[in-house]
Amino acid sequence: MSVKPTVLKLGGSVITKKEKTLTPNLPAIERLTKEISRANVSPLVLVHGGGSFGHPLGYKNDATQTLGFCETHQAMVTLNKLIVDTLIRHNIPAVAVSPSSCVVTKSGRIHAMMEEPLKRLLQTGFVPVLYGDAVVDSDLGFTILSGDQLTAYLAVRLNASRIIMGIDLDGLYTTDPKVDSSARLIKRVTLEELKEMIEQIEESRVTDVTGGMLGKIVELMPVAERGIPSFIVNAAKPKNVYMALKCEKVIGTLVERG
Amino acid sequence: MSVKPTVLKLGGSVITKKEKTLTPNLPAIERLTKEISRANVSPLVLVHGGGSFGHPLGYKNDATQTLGFCETHQAMVTLNKLIVDTLIRHNIPAVAVSPSSCVVTKSGRIHAMMEEPLKRLLQTGFVPVLYGDAVVDSDLGFTILSGDQLTAYLAVRLNASRIIMGIDLDGLYTTDPKVDSSARLIKRVTLEELKEMIEQIEESRVTDVTGGMLGKIVELMPVAERGIPSFIVNAAKPKNVYMALKCEKVIGTLVERG
Repeated sequence: MSVKPTVLKLGGSVITKKEKTLTPNLPAIERLTKEISRANVSPLVLVHGGGSFGHPLGYKNDATQTLGFCETHQAMVTLNKLIVDTLIRHNIPAVAVSPSSCVVTKSGRIHAMMEEPLKRLLQTGFVPVLYGDAVVDSDLGFTILSGDQLTAYLAVRLNASRIIMGIDLDGLYTTDPKVDSSARLIKRVTLEELKEMIEQIEESRVTDVTGGMLGKIVELMPVAERGIPSFIVNAAKPKNVYMALKCEKVIGTLVERG
Repeated sequence: MSVKPTVLKLGGSVITKKEKTLTPNLPAIERLTKEISRANVSPLVLVHGGGSFGHPLGYKNDATQTLGFCETHQAMVTLNKLIVDTLIRHNIPAVAVSPSSCVVTKSGRIHAMMEEPLKRLLQTGFVPVLYGDAVVDSDLGFTILSGDQLTAYLAVRLNASRIIMGIDLDGLYTTDPKVDSSARLIKRVTLEELKEMIEQIEESRVTDVTGGMLGKIVELMPVAERGIPSFIVNAAKPKNVYMALKCEKVIGTLVERG
């Protein structure tokens, strides 16, 4: 690819109403579509999470739950269709790319992916739209592939210029800002610092004090190792995704090699 | 694969109302789902056509029509979602497999396909559901992949036991039964006979007297060459698909090597 693509991840907690099953956050989807349209960044790959669509029917990772797999995938297709339709309505040439059709995982990690359709779509000026999905797994039968893992994988494989992670927080905090008012936003974190934070958690065997964000950021480590920066912004706040796409100054956490 | 799969194609003219844009034939989809459920054939691959969904917006095969490609694919996703949802509602473990996510064509012919997810779905007891789709093409930018071409490709690659082609006619006729009342149904046709019929058409430079059916059957020739029989039945008539799946005697055209 001549120009390196940007990979934009939109978190499930931003585009759906997490507390309500199978309920999209339509105003957020509409607003984010307008921000993407106005920023007009190309080439662009979009990945979205599932939020309340990703686990609609008490789906467990259990090979006997065949219909649960089918229903989970269909729920994700429903959410993806809504997003792609909105993008097309705003003249963004969005094409749904279904992970379950082109990815095989092994013990939950991406093992093989057909990248040619995706690369050709990018070359032809399309915006591929992928998502966290129920996929086949060579060890487990099937599993849930998270949008975060997929985002990081695509950034490395497509040699992306950067990842923009739109979540429902301002970025990575020293402690969980939802329970600790003294939590401090970390504006920049290097690979070395991340490794230390993770080691500390593993050694002390305590839970992730950042409220789960560190688990999310672990996926970004192989990306940072390749020299690809990731920028985490609050996509629930208007204009942040637009400004991040335009490389304008915005509050967030920059994850880089150092 | 230990047991050879059956590939069932449902024609777009059966599952949609061809004269009405973007209108599914809901009673036909419901009835065919029940027939598939009752026949309970496994492993089974389903392929469906697009009918009035396949060319909804005057889409032409023109690389400048970027949004036309997007809209055509989304229309096919809409139809496919409807069919897969209906199958799941009848407890058939159906999984949508999106051709645009896993197929690349070259000058309109399938050039590469990621078959692993499909094969693993079959092994795990799922019913993959594919469809005619807008796909990327290494020469043309993008193109329309017909459900017929995809059906034949899958039958060969998956070493299918047979193809069942459900169309809106009783099979292949000597002339077009829609305009010629003396048209006679051909109950069995061999590869050699098909080749002769096609040569005659090419030599005389006349149009296909069978009303387009021969063009459809040409796709089945590489399948017959492999020794895989195809059976063409009228899926618009109740019980035909059920009986064909159960290998019961039913009116139609058998295409085989000879």
